Amino acid sequence: MQQNHLINSPVDLRNLSIPSLEQVCEDLRAFLIDHVSENGGHFSSSLGVVEITVALHYIFNTPVDKLIWDVGHQAYPHKLLTGRRKKFYSNRMLGGISGFPNIDESEFDAFGTGHSSTSISAILGMAIAARYRGENNRQHIAVIGDGAMTAGLAFEAMNNAGYEQPNMLIILNDNNMSIDNNTGALQNYLTDLTSEKHYNNLRLYLKTLLSAANPSQKWAISTIRKLEKSIKTGAMRYSNLFETLGIRYFGPVDGHDLKKLINSFERLKNITGPKLLHCITVKGKGFAPAMNDQSKWHAPGAFDKYTGAKINKSSTKGPNTTYQEVFGDTLIALAKDNPRIMAITPAMLSGSALNKMKIEMPERVFDVGISEQHAVTFSAGLAADNMLPFCTIYSTFLQRAYDQIIHDVALQNLPVIFCIDRAGVVGADGPTHHGAFDICFLRCIPNITGASPMDLEDFRNLLFTAQSNTIKGPLAIRYPKSSGSGNPTSNFKKLAIGKGRRIKSGKHIAILSLGPVGQYVIAACQELVLEQIDIAHYDLRFFKPLDEDLLHEVFSQFSTVITVEDGSISGGVGSAIMEFMIENCYNVTLKRLGLPDKFAIQGTQEQLHRLYGYDHKAIVKLVSSLYSTTIQNSNSDRDNLKTNRKER
Amino acid sequence: MQQNHLINSPVDLRNLSIPSLEQVCEDLRAFLIDHVSENGGHFSSSLGVVEITVALHYIFNTPVDKLIWDVGHQAYPHKLLTGRRKKFYSNRMLGGISGFPNIDESEFDAFGTGHSSTSISAILGMAIAARYRGENNRQHIAVIGDGAMTAGLAFEAMNNAGYEQPNMLIILNDNNMSIDNNTGALQNYLTDLTSEKHYNNLRLYLKTLLSAANPSQKWAISTIRKLEKSIKTGAMRYSNLFETLGIRYFGPVDGHDLKKLINSFERLKNITGPKLLHCITVKGKGFAPAMNDQSKWHAPGAFDKYTGAKINKSSTKGPNTTYQEVFGDTLIALAKDNPRIMAITPAMLSGSALNKMKIEMPERVFDVGISEQHAVTFSAGLAADNMLPFCTIYSTFLQRAYDQIIHDVALQNLPVIFCIDRAGVVGADGPTHHGAFDICFLRCIPNITGASPMDLEDFRNLLFTAQSNTIKGPLAIRYPKSSGSGNPTSNFKKLAIGKGRRIKSGKHIAILSLGPVGQYVIAACQELVLEQIDIAHYDLRFFKPLDEDLLHEVFSQFSTVITVEDGSISGGVGSAIMEFMIENCYNVTLKRLGLPDKFAIQGTQEQLHRLYGYDHKAIVKLVSSLYSTTIQNSNSDRDNLKTNRKER
Repeated sequence: MQQNHLINSPVDLRNLSIPSLEQVCEDLRAFLIDHVSENGGHFSSSLGVVEITVALHYIFNTPVDKLIWDVGHQAYPHKLLTGRRKKFYSNRMLGGISGFPNIDESEFDAFGTGHSSTSISAILGMAIAARYRGENNRQHIAVIGDGAMTAGLAFEAMNNAGYEQPNMLIILNDNNMSIDNNTGALQNYLTDLTSEKHYNNLRLYLKTLLSAANPSQKWAISTIRKLEKSIKTGAMRYSNLFETLGIRYFGPVDGHDLKKLINSFERLKNITGPKLLHCITVKGKGFAPAMNDQSKWHAPGAFDKYTGAKINKSSTKGPNTTYQEVFGDTLIALAKDNPRIMAITPAMLSGSALNKMKIEMPERVFDVGISEQHAVTFSAGLAADNMLPFCTIYSTFLQRAYDQIIHDVALQNLPVIFCIDRAGVVGADGPTHHGAFDICFLRCIPNITGASPMDLEDFRNLLFTAQSNTIKGPLAIRYPKSSGSGNPTSNFKKLAIGKGRRIKSGKHIAILSLGPVGQYVIAACQELVLEQIDIAHYDLRFFKPLDEDLLHEVFSQFSTVITVEDGSISGGVGSAIMEFMIENCYNVTLKRLGLPDKFAIQGTQEQLHRLYGYDHKAIVKLVSSLYSTTIQNSNSDRDNLKTNRKER
Repeated sequence: MQQNHLINSPVDLRNLSIPSLEQVCEDLRAFLIDHVSENGGHFSSSLGVVEITVALHYIFNTPVDKLIWDVGHQAYPHKLLTGRRKKFYSNRMLGGISGFPNIDESEFDAFGTGHSSTSISAILGMAIAARYRGENNRQHIAVIGDGAMTAGLAFEAMNNAGYEQPNMLIILNDNNMSIDNNTGALQNYLTDLTSEKHYNNLRLYLKTLLSAANPSQKWAISTIRKLEKSIKTGAMRYSNLFETLGIRYFGPVDGHDLKKLINSFERLKNITGPKLLHCITVKGKGFAPAMNDQSKWHAPGAFDKYTGAKINKSSTKGPNTTYQEVFGDTLIALAKDNPRIMAITPAMLSGSALNKMKIEMPERVFDVGISEQHAVTFSAGLAADNMLPFCTIYSTFLQRAYDQIIHDVALQNLPVIFCIDRAGVVGADGPTHHGAFDICFLRCIPNITGASPMDLEDFRNLLFTAQSNTIKGPLAIRYPKSSGSGNPTSNFKKLAIGKGRRIKSGKHIAILSLGPVGQYVIAACQELVLEQIDIAHYDLRFFKPLDEDLLHEVFSQFSTVITVEDGSISGGVGSAIMEFMIENCYNVTLKRLGLPDKFAIQGTQEQLHRLYGYDHKAIVKLVSSLYSTTIQNSNSDRDNLKTNRKER
C-alpha cells in the first residue's frame, strides 16, 4: 500500500489524477479486507461501492453538498475517505465509531442511516430547504441500495420528489441483493431494464425501415423519424418505473468503472430536477469468496484474508445454540404437523434462520423484501383466511409496522404470531438497532399476548404453544440475538398463557425477570447465597397479560421486589407490574432494572448489560444494598405479610 | 323509490337484468343522499363507487369470493347491498354499525379497513392462502382508491404480488382525490395514462406507414407489423407502472358505465395472475354540490338534500373555535415572523386546517399525500438542514411513522414539531381512528418532549414556544378533534418546558390532568365544592418530561391522587407519574382515569368519555367514593405530610 494514496479527506482526493484514483480504490479495498478480516463487520456492501464512493467525493463538493448513504452499512469507504481511517480500528466497538453514518460523528454524514430506505425522504427535505432558501448551487445525493428500494418509504419519497421536482440525485446501487437475494417484482424489473432487450429491438426495426425507405418518399422518412422520436420521448418516457414517478432515469452504468462514473456524475451535476442513476455493482467486489456467497459475507466475523476461512474469535463460553437456530429448526418441526403454519420475513431469511425451512417448504416461507408494513398486513390477510402466520421481524424493524400491528392484526384479533428477533440490546450495531422499545409499544395494544422465553427449551415450548389453538388473537414472542441455555431439543410442552413460574424460593427479596436476563438472576442468586441473602426468583415468561396469582404471591410475601428486563424501563414490564401493584394497593419497595430513558450505545451485549446495570454483578450490587438498608433493619418479611396491603 | 330494487343481498342482485341494475344504482344513490343529508357521514367516496359496487357483487360470488374496500369509507353501497340497509340509520353511532368494513359485522367484509392502503397486502395474503390450499376457483378483489395508492404499504404489496403472481384483481378507483386533491407524481402519471396520448400517436404513425407501404415490399410490411407487436407486447409492457411491477394493467374504463364494468369484470375473472383495472370515477357522482367541491363534501354533516345547504344540528354549547382552527391560524402568524417554519401534512390539508396557509404561503406547506412515514423522514431532512418543520399528523395515523419518529428524528435529536391532531377518542370514526396510544408509544422514546394543552390559549402558547428555540430536540403536541375553551387570540407567551401549573388549590384530594380533559376536572371541582370536598387541580401540560417539582408538591401533600388523560392508561401519563411516585418512595393512593385496555368503540366523544369513566360525572363519582372511604376516615391530609414518604 502506498502511503500517498491513504486519503483522509475529499479535498486531497480532488487533487489526484484518474490513475491515482484507481489506486485509491485498490487501497480502500485492501484496507477493508485487512480490517474486516481482523475485526468482522459489514463487508460486502462496502466492497461494492468503492468506486462509487471515490467518484462521488471526487466530483461533488462534500460536505457542503449533502450525501446520504442508504443503507448505512455501505458507508465504510465513505468513512475512510472522510477522516475516520485512524479511528476505524474502533468501528462498532464500545466507545468507538459507528458502523453507520452518524450526524454526530462527522459533518460528512448528512443523515444517520441505520435503518434502510430513508435517504430519498431525507435528501428531499434538504433539497426543498435549499430551494426555499435560494441556495441553488448545492447538490443533494442519496445512494440507495442493498434492497432498500423495495420499502414503501422509498416509494412514498419518490412520489413526492417527482411532484416537487427539486434538484437531487438518487444513485441506485443495484447489486441484486439485500442481505439475502433481493426478491420482488421490482428486482425482476431492474434486471430486465438492464438488458434493454425490447428497446434494442425497436431501434433495430426502425433502422431497417429507414435504410429501406425510398429517399424520394420524404413523408415516409419523416413519419419514421417521428415514430422514433415519439418512442424515445413519449411512450418511452413511461417505459421506466422511475420516469412514471417524475424522476429522470439514467443508466444503467457499470458501478465499478471509475471513469464512467466520474463522467456520469459530472454530467448529472448540471441537470436540474430529480434524477436517478442506475449503477450495477457486485456485492463483495474484489474479494472472491464474498462474490461467490453474498449472504454469508454480508457481515462476517473475522476470517483469513487469503483463504476466506472463518476464524472463531468468540471468547464467550457456554452453550452455542442460538435462539435463531432453535427458531428455524422448531418452526420446521411444527410446520410438518400443522399445515396452517406459514413463515414470513422482511428480507431477513438467513438472519432469522428461515433459510432451511425455505428450502424444505418453499411454498410456506415468504421473504417479502424490506417491507415490514406489508409483512404484517400480509400476515393479517393470511390469518383472516385461516392460516397461522409466524411473522418474524427484528424488534427494531417491527417499529416500522406499528400501525399494522394495531389496526390490521390486534383490532381484528387475528392469530398472527410475531416472532420478535433481536429483542433487547443487539451489540455492535448500536443505537439504531437495539430492540429496546417493543415491550413498551406492544403493551398498550389491546388483545395482544406478549411473552419472552428464559431459555431455549422455554422458547421451543412457547412456539409449540403458539400454534396449539390455545390463543385466539395475536401473540408476540421476543428473543435476543444470542446463544441460550436450556435443552434445544426437548420434547414439546404446552405452556399456560399468561402464567409465570417460580424458579427459586427465598425469603429476603423477590426478583421478577422477563426473558433470558433471568440467567443473570440465577447467577446472582448463587453469588448472594454466599452473602447469606436468600432471593426468591420468578420468571414472568409473559409481559402481557401478567400472572396475577404469581404477583399476589410475591407482593403479599415480600417488602422489596426487583424487576429485570432487557428493554426500556419507561413503560416496560416493570412499569406494568407497578400498575398491578398500585391498583392492588400493595405498598412495597419496587426497583426496576433495564435500559434507562436514553438511546443505548454500541458495545457487546455483555458490556451493555453491565453498563446499564442489569447483568448479574449489577443485580448482586443492588440486592446487597437494598438488603443492608431495608431488610436487615426491618422485621422478617413473613411477619410483615399483612402490612404490605393498604386498605382498598 | 321502487321497493323491488331495495336489494339486501347480492344473491337477489344476481337475478336482475341490466336495466334493473341501473335502477338499483339510482336507488342506492337516493338512499345515500337521504341518509347522509340527515345524519352526516362519509359521502362523496361512496357516491363515486355505486356502479363499481353493484357490478362487483353482480359478477363475483361474494362472500365466498373475497372483497376488500380500501379506504373503508367507500363501502356504504357495499354495506347497503349486503344486509345492512335496515341498520344503516345507526351508522357511526354508539352501538350502531361501523362506518367502515368490519369483519365482526358481516361475512361480506373480508377485512377491516379504517386506515388506508392495506387492501393489496391483505388480499394477497388471502390469495396465497387459497393457492396453498388448492382453492383455485375463489376470486380475490381489492378496491383501492381515494389516494390510498400513494402509501408505501400499497407499493410494498404490489412489489410482492407481482413476484408471487397469485390470482387477484385490484380495482383502482381513480377519482383524482384523496380527501383533498390527490398530490404526487403518481397522480400526474395516472392522469397521463388516462389520456393515452403517446400511445395513440404511435398507433397513428404505424397506420400511416402501413397504408403507404408498397404491397410488394413484404419485408417492409412484416417489419412494421413486428414493430407494432414489439411496441404492444414488449416495450409497452413496461410503459406502465403496474406492469413494471408484474401486475397486468387493464383500462382505463368509465367507473360509472355499469355495462362496461360488468363486461370487464366478467373478462377479468378468467384471467389468472395479479391484474389491475383502472376505473375513472367522479367523487360525489350524482349530487351536484358534492361534485363541485369534493374536499368539503368528503364527510359532511347534515344538509338540505335539495340545495346542499348545511344544516347545523350541533347541540353542543360553549365556544365554537376548534383546536384545528387555532392551529391553522396560529401557524400562519408564527410563520410570518419565523422563516424557518414549514408545515407538512400527509393528505389532511383541510382536516388539519392547513389549507389557508397553503394559499398564503404555498412554498412552505407540503401535502405529501397518504404517506406518514415519508412525512416524518422528510421533516427530519428539513430539520437536519436548519428548518423547523411542523409535521401535522392525526394520532391514529402517526402509528404509521413510529420507526421514523424513533430512528430518523429522536435518535438524531432533530427539532421536528409533531402536531398530533385527533388525539384521544375521535367519536364516530370509532376504534380504527381513536388517538388512544400516542402517549404510551411516545413516552418510551428518549429525547422527545411531549405536551398537551388544556385550552386554546395554552395551545397557542405551546405552538409559540415550539418555535422559540427553547427546545433542542423533537416536541410532540397532542390535541383533540373538538372545539376548546380559552381565548383563541391571546397574546403569545413562552411556556417553561416540562412545567405544569396549579389550576386550583385544595386540601382533600389532588387531581392531575393532561390536556383538554382538564375542563372536566374544573367542572367536577365546582360540583364537589357543593359536597364540601376540596380538590386541588393541577394541569400537567407536559407528559414528558414530568414536572418533578410539581409532583413532589403533590405527593408530599396528598394521600390520594387521581390522574386523568384522554388516552390508554396502560403505560400512559398516569403510569409515568406512578413511576415517579415509586422511584421517589411515596406511598400514596393513586387512581388513573383514561381509556381501559381494550379498543374503544364508536360514539360521540362525550358518550365515550362517560362510558370509559373520565368525564366530569365520573370524576365526581370517583372522588366522592375515595373521599368517603379514605379521606374522611383518616386524619387531615396536612397532618400526614411526612408519612407519605418511605425511607429511601
